[in-house]
Amino acid sequence: MKKRIITISREFGSAGRSIGKEVARRLGIHYYDRDLVTKIVEQTGFNTEFVEENGEFSPTKSGLYYALEPHSTFGGTYGLSTTDMLWQGQRDVILKLAESEPCVIIGRCADYILKDRTDCFHVFIHADMDFRAERIVNLYGERDDSPQKRLKDQDKKRQVHYKHFTGQEWGMAQNYDITLNSGVIGVEKCVDILVDIYQQD
Amino acid sequence: MKKRIITISREFGSAGRSIGKEVARRLGIHYYDRDLVTKIVEQTGFNTEFVEENGEFSPTKSGLYYALEPHSTFGGTYGLSTTDMLWQGQRDVILKLAESEPCVIIGRCADYILKDRTDCFHVFIHADMDFRAERIVNLYGERDDSPQKRLKDQDKKRQVHYKHFTGQEWGMAQNYDITLNSGVIGVEKCVDILVDIYQQD
Repeated sequence: MKKRIITISREFGSAGRSIGKEVARRLGIHYYDRDLVTKIVEQTGFNTEFVEENGEFSPTKSGLYYALEPHSTFGGTYGLSTTDMLWQGQRDVILKLAESEPCVIIGRCADYILKDRTDCFHVFIHADMDFRAERIVNLYGERDDSPQKRLKDQDKKRQVHYKHFTGQEWGMAQNYDITLNSGVIGVEKCVDILVDIYQQD
Repeated sequence: MKKRIITISREFGSAGRSIGKEVARRLGIHYYDRDLVTKIVEQTGFNTEFVEENGEFSPTKSGLYYALEPHSTFGGTYGLSTTDMLWQGQRDVILKLAESEPCVIIGRCADYILKDRTDCFHVFIHADMDFRAERIVNLYGERDDSPQKRLKDQDKKRQVHYKHFTGQEWGMAQNYDITLNSGVIGVEKCVDILVDIYQQD
């Protein structure tokens, strides 16, 4: 079956978002990253900061006060934690998106959420520490923590979040249709490969 | 740095060997699979059956009597198990090969053994159970055990062997430069992608 949807999971600093954005542009399909956050905020009533920090990472803060906008119409926890509710809302949004249009979806365990659909192509982008360290310093600047520490922290939080909600290991080849080392293969070549696979009959 | 050597690790029945063979043919470089076994037999003095069964899989038999040819000049264990000795010999052969010529090397933890060289491109091929089951029945015929059981057994033995000798998880994306689901992408397209990457400057 021809693929309609591409999900991209990625290590922090591996250019996964840039690759996804360029693939979507070249294929003329929607790119869901910030727009996905907006949809999840609308669906769940959680605020943007909470969705951004807890939709892909193991939590560093908790509590309803932090999670909810002052104007939220949220009605109760029904025994679920805030992160479980976010997962549920995020899952609903991604399942609906996949029904509605061909698109590229960045992160948020979309590979797992859509694993039973045969029209999705699942991608994981990673790269060596040096490549990623240089990239995050160029993109986000220097911080008190070394780039290596920032990368390890972010990877660990994504890994724990993925394992908790999917029961699978983050980065295992068998969870994806292709995984690419963007540092070795090159960002442009990664784009070419994905566009080419998507366009084959 | 331009890549000279391609290592291919693979799930049983995923067409990893066929892909490797065709990539080598198209690139005009040597393909090491059976020839690698021959070299390891020459290097170690172990017999072919022992090298084939224990060079990639966790052992099912053991003992020097089984491992050695009657004419072997092997002089003693020096405290190493036969599988440790095989690992050592296999490692030496692969390191020498990498020094000597551009080539495709199938299996035998070559990705790990050559991980510190920058002129190697590391590939992992996998596929869904149904694709692989159909393929091994076509290639090797029916057996008493179901193809699914045969696949699970072989995968488990490779996984345990890889973990034991490398300390890494078999199939983790980060150990490879590319991983491909041959059932989804197609065997020919996998060949095209690898040839294309090898040929880029």
